[in-house]
Amino acid sequence: MTTDRKYVEELIEQEDDFDRWYVEVIQKAELADESPVRGTRVIRPYGFALWENMQAELDRRIKATGVQNAYFPLFIPKSFLEREAEHIKGFAPEVAWVTRGGDKELEEWLAVRPTSESIICPMFARWVQSYRDLPILINQWCSVVRWEERPRAFLRTLEFLWQEGHTVHATLEEAEERARLMLEVYRDFVESELAIPVIPGQKTESEKFAGALRTYTIEAMMGGKHWALQSATSHNLGDHFGKVFDITFLDREGKRRYVFNTSWGLSHRTIGAMVMVHGDDRGLKLPPRVAPIQVVIVPIWRKDEERRQVEETVDRVRAMLRRAVRVHADLRDDKTPGWKFNDWDLKGVPIRLEIGPRDVASDQVTLVRRDVLGQRQAVPIANLVGAVQSELESIQVSLFRAARAMLERYTEDVRDYEVLKERVATNAGFNRAFWCGDPACEARVKAETKATVRCIPFEQPAELEPCLVCGAPGKYQVIWARAY
Amino acid sequence: MTTDRKYVEELIEQEDDFDRWYVEVIQKAELADESPVRGTRVIRPYGFALWENMQAELDRRIKATGVQNAYFPLFIPKSFLEREAEHIKGFAPEVAWVTRGGDKELEEWLAVRPTSESIICPMFARWVQSYRDLPILINQWCSVVRWEERPRAFLRTLEFLWQEGHTVHATLEEAEERARLMLEVYRDFVESELAIPVIPGQKTESEKFAGALRTYTIEAMMGGKHWALQSATSHNLGDHFGKVFDITFLDREGKRRYVFNTSWGLSHRTIGAMVMVHGDDRGLKLPPRVAPIQVVIVPIWRKDEERRQVEETVDRVRAMLRRAVRVHADLRDDKTPGWKFNDWDLKGVPIRLEIGPRDVASDQVTLVRRDVLGQRQAVPIANLVGAVQSELESIQVSLFRAARAMLERYTEDVRDYEVLKERVATNAGFNRAFWCGDPACEARVKAETKATVRCIPFEQPAELEPCLVCGAPGKYQVIWARAY
Ligand SMILES: [Zn+2]
Ligand SMILES: [Zn+2]
Repeated sequence: MTTDRKYVEELIEQEDDFDRWYVEVIQKAELADESPVRGTRVIRPYGFALWENMQAELDRRIKATGVQNAYFPLFIPKSFLEREAEHIKGFAPEVAWVTRGGDKELEEWLAVRPTSESIICPMFARWVQSYRDLPILINQWCSVVRWEERPRAFLRTLEFLWQEGHTVHATLEEAEERARLMLEVYRDFVESELAIPVIPGQKTESEKFAGALRTYTIEAMMGGKHWALQSATSHNLGDHFGKVFDITFLDREGKRRYVFNTSWGLSHRTIGAMVMVHGDDRGLKLPPRVAPIQVVIVPIWRKDEERRQVEETVDRVRAMLRRAVRVHADLRDDKTPGWKFNDWDLKGVPIRLEIGPRDVASDQVTLVRRDVLGQRQAVPIANLVGAVQSELESIQVSLFRAARAMLERYTEDVRDYEVLKERVATNAGFNRAFWCGDPACEARVKAETKATVRCIPFEQPAELEPCLVCGAPGKYQVIWARAY
Repeated sequence: MTTDRKYVEELIEQEDDFDRWYVEVIQKAELADESPVRGTRVIRPYGFALWENMQAELDRRIKATGVQNAYFPLFIPKSFLEREAEHIKGFAPEVAWVTRGGDKELEEWLAVRPTSESIICPMFARWVQSYRDLPILINQWCSVVRWEERPRAFLRTLEFLWQEGHTVHATLEEAEERARLMLEVYRDFVESELAIPVIPGQKTESEKFAGALRTYTIEAMMGGKHWALQSATSHNLGDHFGKVFDITFLDREGKRRYVFNTSWGLSHRTIGAMVMVHGDDRGLKLPPRVAPIQVVIVPIWRKDEERRQVEETVDRVRAMLRRAVRVHADLRDDKTPGWKFNDWDLKGVPIRLEIGPRDVASDQVTLVRRDVLGQRQAVPIANLVGAVQSELESIQVSLFRAARAMLERYTEDVRDYEVLKERVATNAGFNRAFWCGDPACEARVKAETKATVRCIPFEQPAELEPCLVCGAPGKYQVIWARAY
């Protein structure tokens, strides 16, 4: 029994040190590994399969809005990155520079893309001539590089995987509509597929994307310290980039006008979000919709004659399930069933099926859900496909509900700045509070508590109350929280 | 009529200048575009959709052999790249170096990966302890960078998209088997999906991958100048990388041993291959299996009342076809049908359906195949789905047959070095000839003709004849040709 519990005992408990638990669970569940390159991580097959499932589903949703995928160069000449002043100010401290090609010094340094606005906009300028060419709706899946001194797997690494969408439009209204539409795509994707409830809203001026007119965001609450994680953003770039990169078109009246841009992205930090929102002391709990393995089958036998019978049933069950779900049979013969249970719990597989000699005799399997500890149900093999499918749906719903309950439980209306300070200092969760809109109040809270305005939620109360900080009339209700 | 033929008249004829035709057709068909970054190209949505279809199918085939996808860092520390001496010698002149991060000089330069052996092998060394950990079969889809002075869209660009597979095995035999298996996966993929016949074989010592024990290749013949294009390679790396990166395992007897590696890759240059193998003076001809649009519908009408009827039928036909094939209806109202025919011919769409008032009246459409000029068939709408599917299959077969006929027609057995010189100088095609195996003979031919040994085909004749160059006993029959 001691060796059976090996993994779980080695995993630190969330309450003891949530950040360390995060590091350990990612390592032990084989989502990612340390890498010899400072600031980066290797995404292992189990973690990458999760990302592939997420990609496939998000890609489908993005394309359903009329967007097409393309690919733009990894390198951006320094002069391009510098054209939009706010943009370069925001990104310059984080840029990796290529200064040599082969054995030659480059005349102009090349940035390894931190984001692609400044390489895509010059292409838009080539492609857009008339109103007939608009809108152009493009997305790219790639990695980007931002120099990062304190890496953290998935959340903050020197290089990370994401998709970045870039569009051009004839009017500001259309750009605004697209920016909001893509935020809604993200909200629905994160809530439906990753089972993470989010708060959609707008970033303040001080928190918006470098060069944007407006930045929209979805903010999620993590487990453990109940900090926020910005899970995706969508920017209305106005005509800043159109003017800077001279992207113009002839409108229906033959008049030359500047275009309006949007950009929007979701990165693999959402993997980190799933780990932190759903995980527990036994390890990961992966939402069935994106889990690389939805069902694991563990054979149980003692004698060789049992083994043959059990493994025959395992084969039969696997063949039945394979058409409907992502199933894996764990046939390793150097591990005990107990060790395997812990291993697959750690890896967050939603359903475990145990098949032993008694199950074989009764033509049934024993089904155990990862999210409900200790419950075991016998399911006749004849009903198994339907039962597994409905349990997977039920797990998806129950993970979302549990996450929503956490979000509600750890969110409070705060009307006293001292209470806010206390709550932030004790990791008590999200704080709904009124704000006058003055950047000075925002800056003061950030300096004094390290909490930031995560967003101005789209959903605002009918009555606005005075600013938490200065007592002036409140302009918005905002969410204050510390963030990863 | 003159304006209708705009595109086609602008496209230079293949016979006049095949290389210029290649550049023009890629630009005009919107597969790729110039980019402001020296040596790179932007892959436009039409070109990228083609790559996505190729990726999906090749990824499925790779995974079917037990390989899993993962992701390794873009940057490789200089010292890692230098560990395998042959490897760095081969790649150093082409490496892009990151020397600055943010505003700091780096202590150790980072290479932007030209290929990932030297970053993946250190991870294998971490992951492999015992024979139970073997084999590890990993693939990654990414871009790589090799400094390139004379870029050519898809064929040779500073940055290119590819997949690179990397495996570790307990024995040399198993590595050999994997290297050959992956070459066979490539052969079948390129022949079945891209409709390009290839010659599978082994590279000579002087042409093999830097650091490999043996390199296998599939070589295709392009149109126009009938040069060769290396379409994919698979390397048995022996235990070189195992020894250099200290990847060892305990075998069943408890003895520590070095592993054996393979690596194998297919890049987006195969898009260039499809362009050059199948294209003609009207533009691209895309193989149906990977074509982004398999069927385009062009409505034909003069009066507004016709338009309503025709577009209703277009909608109905599109809805019918959508479930079975990738279909697009070209409803642009600022272009004539003739212009559209040329545009979609240029873009290589396999089937065009024309729907005019007479078609509507007879409940039929007019089907035109891109690969058979001038043939038009009326197809009753009731039979359309089946007819389109069978025509698509037929086009796939006929493109492959035409390409094979070209390969056969422009391949000759050559027994006289003067004839070889003459044939290479006049772009007469592939040359099958015997070779003694002496690198000196190989080097001489390369220096004197610019042709290289493309491969030693797996299929060798029963009787070997004397070396074409020195007359010594022949060891192999090889293929001599110029190559892109
Ligand atoms: Zn205030
Ligand atoms: Zn010779």
